[in-house]
This record gives sequence, structure tokens and C-alpha cells, in this order.
Amino acid sequence: MIKPTNLTGYYKEGEREELWLFDDVEEMGLEIGYKIDRLLHYEQSPYQEISVAESAGFGRMLVLDGIPQYTSKEGYIYNEMLTHVPLTTHPEPHKVAIIGGGDCGAARETAKYTDVKRIDVVEIDARVVEVSRTWLSNPAIYELDDRVHMIYRDGLHWIKGQKAIYDVLIVDRSDPYGPSTALYKPAFYELAYRALNEDGLFVCHSESPYYNPKIMRDTVRYLNKLFPIVRVYLAAVPVFPGGIWSFVIASKKWDPMHADIRRLQWRNNGYMNPDLFYASFALPNYVKKALE
Amino acid sequence: MIKPTNLTGYYKEGEREELWLFDDVEEMGLEIGYKIDRLLHYEQSPYQEISVAESAGFGRMLVLDGIPQYTSKEGYIYNEMLTHVPLTTHPEPHKVAIIGGGDCGAARETAKYTDVKRIDVVEIDARVVEVSRTWLSNPAIYELDDRVHMIYRDGLHWIKGQKAIYDVLIVDRSDPYGPSTALYKPAFYELAYRALNEDGLFVCHSESPYYNPKIMRDTVRYLNKLFPIVRVYLAAVPVFPGGIWSFVIASKKWDPMHADIRRLQWRNNGYMNPDLFYASFALPNYVKKALE
Repeated sequence: MIKPTNLTGYYKEGEREELWLFDDVEEMGLEIGYKIDRLLHYEQSPYQEISVAESAGFGRMLVLDGIPQYTSKEGYIYNEMLTHVPLTTHPEPHKVAIIGGGDCGAARETAKYTDVKRIDVVEIDARVVEVSRTWLSNPAIYELDDRVHMIYRDGLHWIKGQKAIYDVLIVDRSDPYGPSTALYKPAFYELAYRALNEDGLFVCHSESPYYNPKIMRDTVRYLNKLFPIVRVYLAAVPVFPGGIWSFVIASKKWDPMHADIRRLQWRNNGYMNPDLFYASFALPNYVKKALE
Repeated sequence: MIKPTNLTGYYKEGEREELWLFDDVEEMGLEIGYKIDRLLHYEQSPYQEISVAESAGFGRMLVLDGIPQYTSKEGYIYNEMLTHVPLTTHPEPHKVAIIGGGDCGAARETAKYTDVKRIDVVEIDARVVEVSRTWLSNPAIYELDDRVHMIYRDGLHWIKGQKAIYDVLIVDRSDPYGPSTALYKPAFYELAYRALNEDGLFVCHSESPYYNPKIMRDTVRYLNKLFPIVRVYLAAVPVFPGGIWSFVIASKKWDPMHADIRRLQWRNNGYMNPDLFYASFALPNYVKKALE
């Protein structure tokens, strides 16, 4: 019998059993329940538990270790925010690496930039890629676009061999538990800096500024020690607890505040557009305070 | 025995009973649970069920008919967004009316503007005001500031008697159920238009653009028939489902895009500041599309 983490079936009198996925933010006493119409896939990979659920409100949902990572209805928001900011900021991003991002949503957004010549997706868990291809999109971007190369390795091990190679490094890490833990440590940021060209730039998400300001603050602090330009930006991602999500861009040379906005590929986006590019860097007072 | 709506106690083996408040967004198959340390107050007023709970993650929570309306930890976000935009946009807001807003958070923000001479708070339910005074803030703004006048009347009935009186009308309505239903109807917007001076402006929230785009679209559509300038702006409110929340400002003369930003009283705010004032009007593509 399979027993996916956080998935609960319960019985209401006179009704058929309902499935719910419950995502807990324990330290905040918050529990978010998603009604699940059907569990489409479940497996235990060597790295994590992978499931795909058809949800009532968010479409298909990729769930890793019981936590929703991507939904077909609003997953574009996170992916657009993670990729369009660095790819607009860098004036000539030829070589891009994406660490994590096995759902390939970040790779799909990166492929909108025609001056990008190569997109390396470094994913520890080949099963996430295969499950996403089967259930979330078929065919996958790496089958459609020969600039996209899949590298099935641990991001931390892989990056140790990269020196001054990439223009843009996008870290599509999951929450700071399980396989992503190492991607939140100072040693990783140092290796990321070294993997970039002399005008390269780095981007990652940094969790919720409301629920988890420490992750955001630590990410900024570590990156500030390495990069001359470090900026936080925000987006509203409905499926993430609290809705507000933070990202950090760290750059050796190019400042997003002086980006050539004409570079932004936005017409086919669900979220990001030129006004929003600048607006996402405007931080509420409580976020500024948390960063002090 | 009291049985507050949406409040559930359950027993985990070996642990003491836990209280949870569950807010459902039924049409989206979403359920948000807030861990409650203690129920501080519960009553059935003539209009609605009013409770105050000490929550684990959001501080004290004012709950009407089972739905969280204001929290001591982040309630300032909604109140700042509802008030500072119109009060900055109008160059000389002398007379301000707030319909609803019995928690007096909107009145407290309005009082930051020294050119405001009179603040009328029109709340249908005197018990909401009294309960908020007792449990959320003591003393209340109407005891501290003699510009604030409490008027205990049904907003719809009250506004019928108001003609060309107010510079700014702020509608702090609850969700479109129960006592607030009438405040979402075209007839109310017409009366609001009439209650305003010839250069007056109107503001209200319009629910989540993600979960409930119809309310946002209808609000804009009705206001567009009356006011020459209608603009939507957004904020990230962690306690509301999905986090992203929409507001509509409708104006007879003054355009928020040309506001004198030096008017903005922001230094003691938790959220709103000059950058964010403009940024909040930048709409994601999916919100623009929902408004088409």
C-alpha cells in the first residue's frame, strides 16, 4: 500500500472519500489543504518521494516529499520570475546553467531567449524529469530544443568542476530540506561565483519573506560577501504559503536596475512584463527591515 | 456550548487537544488551517458571528462568520494599502468616510494624514468595534483622535443620505457574503459616486485576482461606468488565501499615477512606501487578461 506524505483520505458522512494534500508550515501554525481529485503518480526515487496529483484548484501538481513544487495552473509565475530577471539583465547570456528545476519549467522560459546558445539543466534526480515529462508536459523542452542539455548529477558535485564557464546560473532549488540542503550553504555560493564568467550573474529563490525571513537574509548576506551587486525581488505565487515569495539576483557587473528592458521576452508570459520587472524590486517596509 | 464556525478541536494521540480554524475556498478546493492557541472571545451579534482568537502564527485574529478579517501581525498590510493610495492621490482630502472597517485599522491609517479634518467610520455592527477595541487595541483611535466619528449604521442606508460631501470614500467591506453583500452591487457604487465631491475618489478591495477574478472584473466594470479614472492595484497579504489581493481606486479627477508622492505618510508603515506605491499598480499579465 502506498502512503504518500501529507496526503490524507477522509470520509465525510454520506459522501465518497475525499483526498486532501496538507502542506504544513509548522513554525507558523499554518496548514494548507489542497483537494485532490486523483493521485496520478507516486514513487520513491533514490532521492525523494515524487508524486503527481490532479488537484481541484491548481491543475496538475508535482509534489516532492509531500510539498507542492509546481502546478500546471500557476507554476509559470515562479518560473518566469526566476529566469526573465537574469536573462533580461545580462546583455548577452550565451551559456546558462540551471541547477535543479527537473520539471524543466525554468529551461522552457530560458529557451524564449534566442541569444542563449546553451542551456545546461543539472538535476540530481532523473526521475523528477521523467515524471514531469510524462505527467506535466509531453514532449519536454529538451526534446524540442537542442540547446537544452540534461545533466543528471548532484548540483554541488557538478559545480565543483565548473570554472568561469557560465553567463547566467539559475538555482531552482526546492525547500531547504532533503536533496537541496547543500544549495543553501556558503560553500555552494562560492562555487557558484567561480562557475560564472567575469560578468556573470546568479539567481535563486529565497523562500517566503514573511514566513521565513532568515533564509532570505542569509542568502543575501552570503552573496553580498562575493558579488558587488545583490538585489532582492518579490512575486506573488498563490500556491506557496502566504503567497509572497522572494528571489535574489547577484551579479558581477550587470545591474537589473539598468537592464535594457527591450530584452524582456514577455508577450507570451502569464505573469512577467516590463512594468512588473521594475515593480518586483520595490520591497515592503517589513521586508527591508528583515534585510537590515 | 459555543461552536464557532470553522473552528475545530481535534485530538492527536498522546497530545492535548489542538484548536484549528479552517478557512475554505470551496470553489478552488483549498482549505487553510490556522492553529489557534486560545479562543479569546465569541459572540453572535445581530449581524454576524464575531470571534477573536490568539493564533500561533498571526497573533490576535478577528474572525467574522468563521473568516479571518484582521490579524495583529499583518493586518497593517491590508489597511495601509486601502488608505494610503487614495489619501496620497487626493491633494487635499479634508473629509473622509470609511464604510465598514469596524476594526478601525483603516481609520488609524487615515489619521496619519494631518490635512484630513474629519473621518466618519460607518459600521453596521457596533459589536465589531467594541470587540476590536477590547481585544485588538486599547484604547481605540476614536478615543485618541477627535477627528474620528463612529456612525453605527448600515453603509447602504447611510450613503443614500450623503450628497457631494466627501473627498475620499474608503470601502472596507468584508467578503461578498453576509452584511457586505449590498456593497458589491452597482446601486451602491452609484450612491458612492453621488456621495463624493466633484473631485472625490473612491477605493475598495476587490478580492483575490487569482481565486476570484470575477469580483475584481465586476468591480472595475461597474466603476468604469461612473468614474473617468479607474485603476487596479495589488498587495501581498499573507493571511488571505493565495496571498495576492486586489484593490480598485476610482476617481473623478485625480490620477494616482500623477500623485504627489511627497504626500505619502510612510515612515511608520509596515508595508507601504514610495517605491511600492507605484509598483502596486504594475499588474501581472494574467491579471490584465482577467480585466480585459
